[in-house]
Amino acid sequence: MRLKREDDILFVVIDRGEGFVGCMKEVLHSSVMENVGVVITALGMVKNAQIGYGVYKDNKVEYQKAIFEEPLELLGLSGFIIKDEKLPLHFHVYLGDPNGNVVGGHLFDFEVFTFVEMALLTSSYPLKRVLKNGLFLIDF
Amino acid sequence: MRLKREDDILFVVIDRGEGFVGCMKEVLHSSVMENVGVVITALGMVKNAQIGYGVYKDNKVEYQKAIFEEPLELLGLSGFIIKDEKLPLHFHVYLGDPNGNVVGGHLFDFEVFTFVEMALLTSSYPLKRVLKNGLFLIDF
Amino acid sequence: MRLKREDDILFVVIDRGEGFVGCMKEVLHSSVMENVGVVITALGMVKNAQIGYGVYKDNKVEYQKAIFEEPLELLGLSGFIIKDEKLPLHFHVYLGDPNGNVVGGHLFDFEVFTFVEMALLTSSYPLKRVLKNGLFLIDF
Repeated sequence: MRLKREDDILFVVIDRGEGFVGCMKEVLHSSVMENVGVVITALGMVKNAQIGYGVYKDNKVEYQKAIFEEPLELLGLSGFIIKDEKLPLHFHVYLGDPNGNVVGGHLFDFEVFTFVEMALLTSSYPLKRVLKNGLFLIDF
Repeated sequence: MRLKREDDILFVVIDRGEGFVGCMKEVLHSSVMENVGVVITALGMVKNAQIGYGVYKDNKVEYQKAIFEEPLELLGLSGFIIKDEKLPLHFHVYLGDPNGNVVGGHLFDFEVFTFVEMALLTSSYPLKRVLKNGLFLIDF
Repeated sequence: MRLKREDDILFVVIDRGEGFVGCMKEVLHSSVMENVGVVITALGMVKNAQIGYGVYKDNKVEYQKAIFEEPLELLGLSGFIIKDEKLPLHFHVYLGDPNGNVVGGHLFDFEVFTFVEMALLTSSYPLKRVLKNGLFLIDF
């Protein structure tokens, strides 16, 4: 994983074989990372993608998980990195298969198959997360 | 709906049970909103999503509408908020179902099921929309 | 294609009948374009979309191509414009069909059916691409 900050943009390149979540933890703890990172854009090709659909019941969430082993085009990511140990990483992902069909959901992790290139917008604003009814909500 | 502006980023958190369009109208009329808001990222979980596919004929558009009542993962949003009464809100949406399949289209509205967290980039540039051949085009 | 730069945001509007790649080349060579443009948001309606799924073998990529002639909702784009002749344009796309189903992949090109409106975040940082194992990777 290589990263470069220029003004408030953080450019991140992830190489073949690296795991996404491990790389995002490196970004989180990097000296150039501010308190918040907002995904502007992300693309590349990934494999072993683990995604989920949240089932909420009695203030608890359980994820129906799906694993896609084959390489898929990373069409994009939405999400936030926030320096809050309660939920520092929160991403949703959308992926394209060999026929052009798209799958997506809550992102657990993926392995980079060729490369992933992304840009984050950073902010020093002290966003935090608070636990409310079982959800880690952004709080100002 | 809660919002916080820091420099040119507007953080928006929408709580369970709130309607998206109503919240975006609040953002539009908020004192911290500039003339333009560009969606950087958006994610969460929604229900009763109403989406459309535009059919254009004789300079008129009619939308084929679909309603998805079940909770869906909000994978992302693209779009603009512009302080122009002709078309202040324009969003396209992509949503993930329990099997990881993705649906999407022109967004009419959805109800927030757990939460939605989003970030907009604001600009004071006097973008406007003009009506041309039945389309509300962005004009500089 | 019309474009307007305000601070570090580049607003781009593409009109009916224009080709996407031709317009992005105009953006690339525009006097207001910095070294890098990051897609923040993009939406509209397109036709004759050509998308691909990359098959990598022996440090070479071959794309399985699909062409979608019918008008599709442009749900969004991820990608970078970089002033580097090795690979100046790199985009992935996600598109919604009349039933709300979504297709997507590596973007070769599309023709604008009604309009496309997009915003890019520009940066003067001297990002480049380097060829490594058959891939044009972003290099800092």
